Amino acid sequence: MSKKILFQCDYTEGAHPKILERLFATNMEQTRGYGEDIYCMSAAEKIRDACGNPDLAVHFLVGGTQTNVTVIDSALRSYQGVLCAVSGHINVHETGAVESCGHKVLGLPSEDGKITAAQVEAAYVGHINDGSFEHMVQPKMVYISNPTELGTIYSKAELIALSEVCQKYGLYLFMDGARLGYGLVAPDNDLTLVDIARLCDVFYIGGTKVGALFGEAVVIANEELKKDFRYFIKQKGGMLAKGRLLGLQFDTLFTENLYYEISKGAIALAEKLRAAFEEKGYPYLVPNRTNQIFVILPDADLEKLGEQFEYSYDHRVDEGHSAVRFCTSWATREENVDALIACIKEL
Amino acid sequence: MSKKILFQCDYTEGAHPKILERLFATNMEQTRGYGEDIYCMSAAEKIRDACGNPDLAVHFLVGGTQTNVTVIDSALRSYQGVLCAVSGHINVHETGAVESCGHKVLGLPSEDGKITAAQVEAAYVGHINDGSFEHMVQPKMVYISNPTELGTIYSKAELIALSEVCQKYGLYLFMDGARLGYGLVAPDNDLTLVDIARLCDVFYIGGTKVGALFGEAVVIANEELKKDFRYFIKQKGGMLAKGRLLGLQFDTLFTENLYYEISKGAIALAEKLRAAFEEKGYPYLVPNRTNQIFVILPDADLEKLGEQFEYSYDHRVDEGHSAVRFCTSWATREENVDALIACIKEL
Amino acid sequence: MSKKILFQCDYTEGAHPKILERLFATNMEQTRGYGEDIYCMSAAEKIRDACGNPDLAVHFLVGGTQTNVTVIDSALRSYQGVLCAVSGHINVHETGAVESCGHKVLGLPSEDGKITAAQVEAAYVGHINDGSFEHMVQPKMVYISNPTELGTIYSKAELIALSEVCQKYGLYLFMDGARLGYGLVAPDNDLTLVDIARLCDVFYIGGTKVGALFGEAVVIANEELKKDFRYFIKQKGGMLAKGRLLGLQFDTLFTENLYYEISKGAIALAEKLRAAFEEKGYPYLVPNRTNQIFVILPDADLEKLGEQFEYSYDHRVDEGHSAVRFCTSWATREENVDALIACIKEL
Amino acid sequence: MSKKILFQCDYTEGAHPKILERLFATNMEQTRGYGEDIYCMSAAEKIRDACGNPDLAVHFLVGGTQTNVTVIDSALRSYQGVLCAVSGHINVHETGAVESCGHKVLGLPSEDGKITAAQVEAAYVGHINDGSFEHMVQPKMVYISNPTELGTIYSKAELIALSEVCQKYGLYLFMDGARLGYGLVAPDNDLTLVDIARLCDVFYIGGTKVGALFGEAVVIANEELKKDFRYFIKQKGGMLAKGRLLGLQFDTLFTENLYYEISKGAIALAEKLRAAFEEKGYPYLVPNRTNQIFVILPDADLEKLGEQFEYSYDHRVDEGHSAVRFCTSWATREENVDALIACIKEL
Repeated sequence: MSKKILFQCDYTEGAHPKILERLFATNMEQTRGYGEDIYCMSAAEKIRDACGNPDLAVHFLVGGTQTNVTVIDSALRSYQGVLCAVSGHINVHETGAVESCGHKVLGLPSEDGKITAAQVEAAYVGHINDGSFEHMVQPKMVYISNPTELGTIYSKAELIALSEVCQKYGLYLFMDGARLGYGLVAPDNDLTLVDIARLCDVFYIGGTKVGALFGEAVVIANEELKKDFRYFIKQKGGMLAKGRLLGLQFDTLFTENLYYEISKGAIALAEKLRAAFEEKGYPYLVPNRTNQIFVILPDADLEKLGEQFEYSYDHRVDEGHSAVRFCTSWATREENVDALIACIKEL
Repeated sequence: MSKKILFQCDYTEGAHPKILERLFATNMEQTRGYGEDIYCMSAAEKIRDACGNPDLAVHFLVGGTQTNVTVIDSALRSYQGVLCAVSGHINVHETGAVESCGHKVLGLPSEDGKITAAQVEAAYVGHINDGSFEHMVQPKMVYISNPTELGTIYSKAELIALSEVCQKYGLYLFMDGARLGYGLVAPDNDLTLVDIARLCDVFYIGGTKVGALFGEAVVIANEELKKDFRYFIKQKGGMLAKGRLLGLQFDTLFTENLYYEISKGAIALAEKLRAAFEEKGYPYLVPNRTNQIFVILPDADLEKLGEQFEYSYDHRVDEGHSAVRFCTSWATREENVDALIACIKEL
Repeated sequence: MSKKILFQCDYTEGAHPKILERLFATNMEQTRGYGEDIYCMSAAEKIRDACGNPDLAVHFLVGGTQTNVTVIDSALRSYQGVLCAVSGHINVHETGAVESCGHKVLGLPSEDGKITAAQVEAAYVGHINDGSFEHMVQPKMVYISNPTELGTIYSKAELIALSEVCQKYGLYLFMDGARLGYGLVAPDNDLTLVDIARLCDVFYIGGTKVGALFGEAVVIANEELKKDFRYFIKQKGGMLAKGRLLGLQFDTLFTENLYYEISKGAIALAEKLRAAFEEKGYPYLVPNRTNQIFVILPDADLEKLGEQFEYSYDHRVDEGHSAVRFCTSWATREENVDALIACIKEL
Repeated sequence: MSKKILFQCDYTEGAHPKILERLFATNMEQTRGYGEDIYCMSAAEKIRDACGNPDLAVHFLVGGTQTNVTVIDSALRSYQGVLCAVSGHINVHETGAVESCGHKVLGLPSEDGKITAAQVEAAYVGHINDGSFEHMVQPKMVYISNPTELGTIYSKAELIALSEVCQKYGLYLFMDGARLGYGLVAPDNDLTLVDIARLCDVFYIGGTKVGALFGEAVVIANEELKKDFRYFIKQKGGMLAKGRLLGLQFDTLFTENLYYEISKGAIALAEKLRAAFEEKGYPYLVPNRTNQIFVILPDADLEKLGEQFEYSYDHRVDEGHSAVRFCTSWATREENVDALIACIKEL
């Protein structure tokens, strides 16, 4: 166990105590396996309610890479690819999982982790108008993460525009919501789960980074994508034998707004920390108001902070400065944030 | 929650209480992610000790299908295949996960779930002597499960023979140990973890079915298979963000022989149940002494048992009889076994 | 160049002279690439005519393995598999090409290279009724070869039965016609191209073994399989730059019945050779009346024949006998068959 | 057959007459299949001679996409990727063939179709120094085309630098030589086949675009890549039944310098055409001296040229101008070039 205080990511602790309590309380109950138990059913029902649509298909998987690859492979034929920001998790940090299933990730330039409806339209129209289109991968899905890997979020207007362009060209819109909670409660957010469920063909609600031990809840709105999805889950290794562990966790998170409440805590602490960086005049790599703070610091200051705190190193900006990431989460203790702020003030 | 008592599989409950206690106790500790924490290190060390070889590589994955596909894809090139019993889990019950990674499963006939060194030799020699060998999938790995999907186990002599033939022809020997605990403590077993670690190139120790919430510990002995294994884990979606959950569980299971102790409990109850079936003269589909009982029952009797108990239906044997499976596990309560036995006696 | 006379396969010579002549005559003409030239259009039109259906999609690929994998991958999602005889070319002699695209080949037992409607129905119904069906590969296509790898052919009644069961369960019926010409003119055949085009969802007409330098013509009847097929051809490496070479060959083969005429020649010589074997009382491995003769010979006799002739060794039948294959083709010279018969008579 | 004169690509005609003559002359000879005939052996020997290394493995495949995917899949494990220019054929125009085999193409920025040793080093060093390297695709191969898709060529110094950086980091250097002949005889070229065979781990000599009906000769220098290569050829559908067709063509091309002689003719005509464009002051998209001319023309002039000639449209440069490609080849007639030049002069 590190003696330093960890701010490098949002999965350094276990689960919210209410989740552990329920695991404890139900431990010796007998249930059927593979997600066909009452807890999964109950959790799915609560998520459908929260999304305002009783027809949504809801499935529970273990982790994000697994979820991305399962959703994408279930949607695409082998000659079809998925458009995403070059910084998209599937393009950078999943060891080529999407390609290992045969699909090309079609990266679009992006400074802030987001892509626009105009970019999607240009990519698709460019494809179909190219004389060699059959020699090229056909774009068929749009992958966005919200919040993005850079902590930015999509506005409702932006998501509507993306949804419309996808509808227009028969593309599937898929939102990776590994940190969805932190986006939904961000001060500048105007999207709701209901909006997302209406505008996306498929998305997932992240548990691993928002209060659960592990788990991601896939929500499928498009009928075409619902068919035989459990075959894909099994094949990609995501069908947990004791599926109820996933059901129990999401059932708890979607009881009495727990998912939102714990997300708010993380955002409040991020805002506090952000204020400290701003006060010192450190520029952001990309500004955002979710739980990830990407800030550019002089290397000497970073070294100083690094004596007591762990952060995530992003990249060298110039000879004397680096971009780094500090995260808060549902589990972050205010005393630790205060300690970090104190250290920042002394820089 | 079903009112019936469940005997259909060995993953109907949660985890051994000692595991839950440690999850509780360590919940708010901060650790690095992805299996690079002190609990994973400690668990790996204990497993290396139990296997009697300090050079083994040990990795922790979430589930069995994921583990099989990760190990097999890490060992094979695209034109190479894996020999296994036609009844092997990878051949039947993983929705083609191995094929989805590009490798053919080369099924060998088997009545009892096991394959022999002679079968492996014949398959390999047949391949290299075939004039069209480059037109055929090259056998490169041998997959065995121990206990098998039919509950049978390999003797030490059988495993030595398999290991020798694999060495002779440059094949990798891989043991799926999803139920390994139940095999190692079976009354007729003469294999030890040390034997297995010496005779196999790679194997895994099942946690999901033997006391853990989830988790399989991959043990790699062959240097060729150690290289870059973590890339494969990540790509196949098996790298748990909060990897310590896996480390903690295996650390607990390999403390004070817990893994063996809880396995023994399951076997004792299986033996008791087995005696009841034998007393009534029901024949076995395949006899074994591990935690899965495959027995052939008249349909009328099955219906009677089915009123109170769930079992796993295997296949119809003849017009009036079916083969079914009853499982015990570390979590099985003796009172439930007694209730089932009482019901059997009344048949 | 071997001094022996080759009977081991049906691709030992080049192309029918009429094909070479047209390649010569058109050599310096300029055409667009990738199959979008007038020769491909003309050939496709002639094949549609021969099949009696103006709505068929026709594509030209280079070789059989490539064709099989392109058709199968275009039809299946990753969790779906293809039923075929264990002896099917895709199951045995394509180095796992189908698996390398992610699909499991689901082998069905067969003595004569054929599978029955009843087998297909049992496999499909068994799948959907299995409690673990989502853990298993879903059968979605039926692959048959006609003639089979053992030279046998399907009767019209058999093909109708297969087609009906495929229709009933939503399976695609795919016929590998690498040697189709030799089947269509066999003495015991009652199928026509029109029947095949009506009963199969997709099939191909083999050129490589029936008069062409190379080339297979894929004929797609099912609308679902027509969409975006050229993307698959390109991705699998089958889109020949100078596509007209394929068009020219099939245009020639389907002019003035050339395809049938040259097939008849091969069959006539096979029948003559067959009579010689029968006269000596050699048993068949499997009887058939197409261009492949599978006969069981004493090893001593084989050695004798092997001094002057090459055949294809199939397998050892017993201590003193082996099953071997002799092939005729469009290119077989009668004088060579006579020489072989003379040698047989002397055995 | 188009009435226009085609300049859009270098595969609009058939084969060099000497090749057709040999196909004709050998047509009814009997040979073994799958590349194990005397013509393939002879051609391989001539290529080894031309490359100055008797230990090279030489294989003959049908087309370029097939060749690229076979070579790349034979070299990489599933978590490894191939570095290449963003404009590389494998990244743009092969319908994701490399990804369909599970490997990510790692695009590097490039204006002229080339990549540098410095880019490769930065990509590899960046990977291994990244804290999340196991979450990213590992670069293992460098793909270059020479000439590139933009007609540019690598100098000897550039290739040496690439080779050295590949050696340093254990990367395979693979050259796609689909148009190699046109590069080797370009006025500004200083590379020889001997250099290439010494500096690359594997490369191929293009036939399809340089005098053959079809065919690419893969030359493997690195021992690691030689093993079991024919299995890969078969699995990827590239093992031509009548393999001698490939052997015959390359044997002819590598007899009496035919490959170079016909390439020179194409270059002479390209230079003549280039002069005409230059005289009019049209700028190049990228200057080069091989057989592809990428020139930027006013749309009105393009329309005029388009009445008699076909070219390849590349992209819109600005409101009134487009970049287009004109190609010459071994088959281009001087009278056609003269007609085009006359038309250019009139613009």
